[in-house]
Amino acid sequence: MSACGMDSPAAGEAVIYRPIGIIHSPFNERRGMPIQPAGARGVKGRVEIDAPYRPGLKDLESFSHIILLYHFHLARDYRLEVVPFLDTVPRGLFATRAPQRPNPLGLSIVRLTGVADGILYIEDVDIVTGTPLLDVKPYVPAFDIVTEATGGWTQGKEQEARAMRSDGRFHGADNPR
Amino acid sequence: MSACGMDSPAAGEAVIYRPIGIIHSPFNERRGMPIQPAGARGVKGRVEIDAPYRPGLKDLESFSHIILLYHFHLARDYRLEVVPFLDTVPRGLFATRAPQRPNPLGLSIVRLTGVADGILYIEDVDIVTGTPLLDVKPYVPAFDIVTEATGGWTQGKEQEARAMRSDGRFHGADNPR
Repeated sequence: MSACGMDSPAAGEAVIYRPIGIIHSPFNERRGMPIQPAGARGVKGRVEIDAPYRPGLKDLESFSHIILLYHFHLARDYRLEVVPFLDTVPRGLFATRAPQRPNPLGLSIVRLTGVADGILYIEDVDIVTGTPLLDVKPYVPAFDIVTEATGGWTQGKEQEARAMRSDGRFHGADNPR
Repeated sequence: MSACGMDSPAAGEAVIYRPIGIIHSPFNERRGMPIQPAGARGVKGRVEIDAPYRPGLKDLESFSHIILLYHFHLARDYRLEVVPFLDTVPRGLFATRAPQRPNPLGLSIVRLTGVADGILYIEDVDIVTGTPLLDVKPYVPAFDIVTEATGGWTQGKEQEARAMRSDGRFHGADNPR
């Protein structure tokens, strides 16, 4: 059952996904990109959903924001400790949003300004153009806003996050943050 | 390059992930489960991270909440329109958080109460036990709280969402919501 000697039968089994669309943005490379949607206010992009999936977009435009889950397709090797853009000391990889991860899954909350003919028109885009989309979910305030959450080592760096641009430190990475 | 006749070379290429751990919870089946962490307040669980990835957990416990990205391993076929738990009319799949999706990626924001020996101790768990974990990210208020977001068709159903339990309508689904 398991390719990796895990205890659980599910643990070692590969998960295979297929992109359902492509994200387009003004960013042709990672360098100089905002590191989060919070720093990409007003940056416009679009998501082209592949034709077979378009009927699933009904009602999506009733939401002001959506969650894009995508594959950091330019990411290569990861390290389990990284110096994030917002810090000067190494942090555990899973305590950061760095793109180079064991499973390089990207998550961005973007503004949805329109839906037409299978295209999602979006703003606050911090994603490199050509990124394969895996899933779209509505951003639901009742589920996704956790007012009591505290930001760990990122606390107090909010202004910095908005101004920060990628310097390419994650070699081989696309959407660094 | 493309197995599905897409325009972009990246579009048709399969994305292969491997679980990095297993999520444990009190829920052995989907029926009767809360449909979102907001309805699972105080429900305890734990995430067992596979040994090779544990060094990446450093600094994670400085965050009060984390984002779990996981594979809805019990999900089978999807439909592009579904009647969500919170509604009585069919909605486009991507305008819902239903587990049966083209790429059955689950996303839960849970409270992190401790980290020890590769185990994440979590609360507000709406995930069926045995679910394979793909990624952990910190929930960063500056990135993830979008105060101006509006909830589309879910607007005004916040109380209902907290009380709602899965009735198994997503046949074959695990973590329905």
